[in-house]
Amino acid sequence: MALKPIVAVNFKAYYPYSFGEYALRLAKSARKVWEETGVRIILAPPYTEIRRIIEVVEGTEIEVYGQHADPIEPGARTGYIPLEALVEAGAHGVILNHSEHRLKLADINWLIKRAQKLGLKTLVCADVPETGAAVAVLGPDMVAVEPPELIGTGIPVSKAKPEVITGSVELIRRVNKNVLILTGAGISSGDDVYAAIKLGTIGVLVASAIVKAKKPYDVIKDMALKALNAIK
Amino acid sequence: MALKPIVAVNFKAYYPYSFGEYALRLAKSARKVWEETGVRIILAPPYTEIRRIIEVVEGTEIEVYGQHADPIEPGARTGYIPLEALVEAGAHGVILNHSEHRLKLADINWLIKRAQKLGLKTLVCADVPETGAAVAVLGPDMVAVEPPELIGTGIPVSKAKPEVITGSVELIRRVNKNVLILTGAGISSGDDVYAAIKLGTIGVLVASAIVKAKKPYDVIKDMALKALNAIK
Amino acid sequence: MALKPIVAVNFKAYYPYSFGEYALRLAKSARKVWEETGVRIILAPPYTEIRRIIEVVEGTEIEVYGQHADPIEPGARTGYIPLEALVEAGAHGVILNHSEHRLKLADINWLIKRAQKLGLKTLVCADVPETGAAVAVLGPDMVAVEPPELIGTGIPVSKAKPEVITGSVELIRRVNKNVLILTGAGISSGDDVYAAIKLGTIGVLVASAIVKAKKPYDVIKDMALKALNAIK
Amino acid sequence: MALKPIVAVNFKAYYPYSFGEYALRLAKSARKVWEETGVRIILAPPYTEIRRIIEVVEGTEIEVYGQHADPIEPGARTGYIPLEALVEAGAHGVILNHSEHRLKLADINWLIKRAQKLGLKTLVCADVPETGAAVAVLGPDMVAVEPPELIGTGIPVSKAKPEVITGSVELIRRVNKNVLILTGAGISSGDDVYAAIKLGTIGVLVASAIVKAKKPYDVIKDMALKALNAIK
Repeated sequence: MALKPIVAVNFKAYYPYSFGEYALRLAKSARKVWEETGVRIILAPPYTEIRRIIEVVEGTEIEVYGQHADPIEPGARTGYIPLEALVEAGAHGVILNHSEHRLKLADINWLIKRAQKLGLKTLVCADVPETGAAVAVLGPDMVAVEPPELIGTGIPVSKAKPEVITGSVELIRRVNKNVLILTGAGISSGDDVYAAIKLGTIGVLVASAIVKAKKPYDVIKDMALKALNAIK
Repeated sequence: MALKPIVAVNFKAYYPYSFGEYALRLAKSARKVWEETGVRIILAPPYTEIRRIIEVVEGTEIEVYGQHADPIEPGARTGYIPLEALVEAGAHGVILNHSEHRLKLADINWLIKRAQKLGLKTLVCADVPETGAAVAVLGPDMVAVEPPELIGTGIPVSKAKPEVITGSVELIRRVNKNVLILTGAGISSGDDVYAAIKLGTIGVLVASAIVKAKKPYDVIKDMALKALNAIK
Repeated sequence: MALKPIVAVNFKAYYPYSFGEYALRLAKSARKVWEETGVRIILAPPYTEIRRIIEVVEGTEIEVYGQHADPIEPGARTGYIPLEALVEAGAHGVILNHSEHRLKLADINWLIKRAQKLGLKTLVCADVPETGAAVAVLGPDMVAVEPPELIGTGIPVSKAKPEVITGSVELIRRVNKNVLILTGAGISSGDDVYAAIKLGTIGVLVASAIVKAKKPYDVIKDMALKALNAIK
Repeated sequence: MALKPIVAVNFKAYYPYSFGEYALRLAKSARKVWEETGVRIILAPPYTEIRRIIEVVEGTEIEVYGQHADPIEPGARTGYIPLEALVEAGAHGVILNHSEHRLKLADINWLIKRAQKLGLKTLVCADVPETGAAVAVLGPDMVAVEPPELIGTGIPVSKAKPEVITGSVELIRRVNKNVLILTGAGISSGDDVYAAIKLGTIGVLVASAIVKAKKPYDVIKDMALKALNAIK
């Protein structure tokens, strides 16, 4: 059975787009695209919005992830978010080590292992193929290689640095046969998603192109359809 | 007009007490105590629970605060919580510089000023009278002096180190006439709250004694009544 | 007795200027200026150069400071520099909370108190008048207010933001009568030093204008002479 | 040609043992052992002592490493130590990611690559076999797997957790054929070194057992001789 392509949406902390009514509208758009295409969609809203986004996507297969989790056990840890906080809020997974929120190596490993015990999926980011492979050694569910210098630029990694994608796939597969490989940075359109999948990944991690879009539905739908085309 | 005494409840990240149904029950208990006593109550739940707690206390004067905020502007900041995230979630204020989440001095100042512009109250923690006074220079709404070595011990600062409280009040008043002065660490009962107020503060910052209590209502009620007695 | 004006030189980590032969030459230039003017000179080289710089200035009143110290006790702390490491290396003091190496408020206080016990002078930086006053509450030997946006620009704070200097002096003096007040950021010439002292400080914290100068001796000498003129 | 066994000594920041005359005596002891045995010895003193230790071991093959380096380029970085600071001080290499000074994954990779360009050897620590393998993917010269819970206990990893050593060797060799594999944590005697090498490593990373020893020479000599026996 072929794997479903993945469109993972990192809401980040854009004001006002990542919050409140904007965040709800984004989740509703994603829900509609999922209903129409069945593409695997992951939404990663700010901590404060997780519960409401989960309500919106209830009854679908859309997954809601935390954007990060702190490498701590629950307890007297004021202002930190342990994995258990995400579980309690109903989240299905967590992004770890995003280029805007890098983690220490030992903590990435600790969080992956603990997330597995808690039933949370892990999507771990890396900046270059080598660190992507290093992360893959630790056994997460997904690895997303994103060159930080392209993040937010609108210059898609699939065009500007296709060798990052092919190199990542090659290095990662040497050490881990099963991990799902995503890419990201500058992904703006369905064509970028198509190219990313054709270069060997199973999907993309996208932020501003969707989150700050005038019509998020249109962008997600375009990406979903091109992703399905690419995977055939 | 006399100031109302303050009972501020830091939910921290206790599992399962700070989350889900436990968090809701705690908020409902606080609501009941507020309805019965009118004491000023501040609730600081984990980020993921803020929206739900706010729904519970709607229509009361209970305030809901973030436990922390990251010293950043909104934007491409994956997994961070800017003050704007709290505003969007409906929060009324924020705790800053808790001993479990210390901030850099320049960031405390930046956050206080930005919170003021955004209409968020600030409750800034400090470990000793000197740092309490340093914080007071920056003009927050509240300063809470909490000796870290007593936090979570059940040994109340008002008994173990009354000189920390009187010393804080003295040093803080030299540099700031208006800031509300709280204390905390080991506060377990209404008697501890009474003592803290008699030593010159306007109230307390409490965590485990309420959050992990079998009957949170009883503890909050006891603290609220003794606080009212003390303030007369 | 009038206080001596201060020229404090932060070597930072410029390559190659802050290291090796360049660092030695800088220290020798400072020594010569001290011998000719008697101005109070503080040199803050990288950790790795402290011992050699101390040898160069032996027999003078030039003081050698660490650029930072980690807020830790000695022990199993691989790769950290406790205050004791500076004492052992022969240093006379330490810069704390530089804008490029901010510290948490509680740690600034801890380090000031511990430095005092160990006989090390403390020069604590701040970004704005308010944080300068907050720091002054903690009782360091010197406070240097430096607007980060001017650091390294060559645009002297004494011209671009004289109100930062006068505001700092005013706020700091309200809470601390004795602390020595310095300023910095963009200080490039003796004229800038002159202006800074005339605005109420006792001297300056300088980096690139001296460290990256073709002839450090000329710059230090110019600053020292103008400082003496200003203080008269 | 057989590889030489390695005894790497992490001075840490013990007071007074890691500094001043104690540090010099330790380096002289190491020098004597090297002259008598030819074992590969690595010394990692605090930043402030590097230059003096290098003078002591001049003319030998003993290598001097930094205990850490900050993941930064040289420049306006007050109080930080870029790799270039170590090069300028004459160091031959650097320890990275020690359990007391963990680094972010992307920074470990960046530092390894930059160290290679600068001619510095890299000894990268990890806490468990999986992270040891992750680090090995990045191509450092040496990987040292050290269970943090045994560090400083005197309970040698080679006895308490031999499976950590054999597991590390197995996982690391799958992804990197050439990296030198060390172990550490609780290593106290020559027998511990012997066991560590017999379990598949090329040597050990030791701290308190040597640094705080009454007679460092005796301990280093014992370890060197047993290491040579083990490697035969």
